[in-house]
Amino acid sequence: MRATTIHGVGDIRSTQVPDPALQKPTDAIVKVVGSCICGSDLWNYRGSNGEIEEPRTIGHECIGVIEEVGADVRDFKPGDFVIVPFDHCDNTCPHCLAGVQSVCENLGFTVSGQSEYALVNQADGSLVKLDETPDAAMYPDLLALTDVMATGWHAAVMSGLGSGTKGGTAVVVGDGAVGLCGVLAAAQLGAERVVAMSRHEARQEIAKKFGATDIIAARGKEGEAAVRELTGGVGADYVLECVGTDQSFKTASKVARPGATVGFVGVPHDVNLPVNALFRTNVGLKGGMAPVRRYLPDLLRLTLDGTINPGLVFDKALPFTEAAEGYRLMDERLATKVQLTY
Amino acid sequence: MRATTIHGVGDIRSTQVPDPALQKPTDAIVKVVGSCICGSDLWNYRGSNGEIEEPRTIGHECIGVIEEVGADVRDFKPGDFVIVPFDHCDNTCPHCLAGVQSVCENLGFTVSGQSEYALVNQADGSLVKLDETPDAAMYPDLLALTDVMATGWHAAVMSGLGSGTKGGTAVVVGDGAVGLCGVLAAAQLGAERVVAMSRHEARQEIAKKFGATDIIAARGKEGEAAVRELTGGVGADYVLECVGTDQSFKTASKVARPGATVGFVGVPHDVNLPVNALFRTNVGLKGGMAPVRRYLPDLLRLTLDGTINPGLVFDKALPFTEAAEGYRLMDERLATKVQLTY
Repeated sequence: MRATTIHGVGDIRSTQVPDPALQKPTDAIVKVVGSCICGSDLWNYRGSNGEIEEPRTIGHECIGVIEEVGADVRDFKPGDFVIVPFDHCDNTCPHCLAGVQSVCENLGFTVSGQSEYALVNQADGSLVKLDETPDAAMYPDLLALTDVMATGWHAAVMSGLGSGTKGGTAVVVGDGAVGLCGVLAAAQLGAERVVAMSRHEARQEIAKKFGATDIIAARGKEGEAAVRELTGGVGADYVLECVGTDQSFKTASKVARPGATVGFVGVPHDVNLPVNALFRTNVGLKGGMAPVRRYLPDLLRLTLDGTINPGLVFDKALPFTEAAEGYRLMDERLATKVQLTY
Repeated sequence: MRATTIHGVGDIRSTQVPDPALQKPTDAIVKVVGSCICGSDLWNYRGSNGEIEEPRTIGHECIGVIEEVGADVRDFKPGDFVIVPFDHCDNTCPHCLAGVQSVCENLGFTVSGQSEYALVNQADGSLVKLDETPDAAMYPDLLALTDVMATGWHAAVMSGLGSGTKGGTAVVVGDGAVGLCGVLAAAQLGAERVVAMSRHEARQEIAKKFGATDIIAARGKEGEAAVRELTGGVGADYVLECVGTDQSFKTASKVARPGATVGFVGVPHDVNLPVNALFRTNVGLKGGMAPVRRYLPDLLRLTLDGTINPGLVFDKALPFTEAAEGYRLMDERLATKVQLTY
């Protein structure tokens, strides 16, 4: 198949590789009809996840049509249009049943999402299908559900939003696609005031469309002071950490009011948690890799009925064979999120 | 007054110092009738909190009788028998109203608890009085409420216990007085199974009296494996970290099931949080210095009606003028917790 492959730092190519094949009777093969580039793909692109020793496929966000299913797959058949969570789960193990599908005992990942075909482990547990084949205009919204929208939602839920009480102020640290989706999630889950920390005008505009009531462009101490001022000196009731750097974790823990929880979903890179400050302020930390499948049915319903339109995070589309250019644009922050077309 | 003072590493003395005096109209002076030594006093005793530059009073756990109140104190008068939370709060600021009295905008601390008199800041917000002067036999129970019992309770609440759902397995890391009180709290707050990690037979016995259903004597990897086995490979639903060392934080985060929260109350000393492991497992961390005043009314009621008897954590009593011997016994782990008598 035609695949998007990574060969080294900054080296993305469109190459021919063998088609993925079923490995277990619970697997399915999806013919990809839409995919996209994730901010976390950039960690690999930039070499922050260690050296690329051998060329390999890349991409974990895709939607498509079932091509083939293993003998034990009951709920899907060739031709079904499916959303593919980036993290695959059986949805029956104790961790899945506790809502932590991202730590499933049979965890798997999409590894050739930016190619022609993708292997899905635990198809019955992972996939969600649409009753009808959607219009291509819906693809951006549906693609967002495979990762960034569910991840932003997870940050909001982990920060305590949606667990009954409404109102309060949520601060979102990070204005990438996940942060923007975090803004949308916080607004949907009942925060009265949603503060987006963003310096980029185009992203600020999306944040506002998603429900941000306030924008703070300042960073570091100045940004923290702005949140304090905006919250009457108290701090934010809910904080969503959507970056994963040491600086973003520090900002997140500092803008939280005492007793609040920072919901974190940015993959931590060289983060040194300020445990003594957390102790002193009773600010909690909860989060991690998002259990996409947990939220997917609800998010799909909200998307199909038009309540949310997370596809707004895409500001560029390219043929999937030109993914390299998409990586370049995102790496240089010339695009927020790039959709790949087929 | 006769005071317990610290002069350097391992150097505790009984000396004469000036009586504390009211500094603000919201202050009160308490004539101490009972006090005790806290595990966290040992950090100072051992020099782990930095050098002792000048001799100073020590001790933050005491009960007593109001001696004098400032002009703005409304709810207390000389002669009232009071429980003194180690952390003083106005109980009216936004943080107090949110249940985080330990981050009060007017936070204060008991600093001469092991002496004849103690100054209490924010008397109206901090103190809780008894309707009648209790029998001296009640002092151990009441002393436990000033810190360790409330702190163990905080660990349990922060881990998610008591928020509606009953059942599940709680693991308590640490068998000091706080850990033992954590066992009591977890049992009271509805955990079905309460696992005390303890190597000390005498402490294991107290843990059992407090409601521990299982004891794990093994530490490190072996201890973690024992928890996994006991929980069918899943991990604990609730974890209480009651020590504050790097090792105890690691153990706590490893025995938690994915998605669970570690309630931590051990003052962190050189702790390097495993943030990537927390991300991977979705294990949360929440805790810090306990808001004693938040829990005190309920804990006092449970103590007075005999539901809980946290005074069992004391295994030694000495005249307060002999506090130095008490420190030695606790430092060498020859006593769990030492009561000082007057």
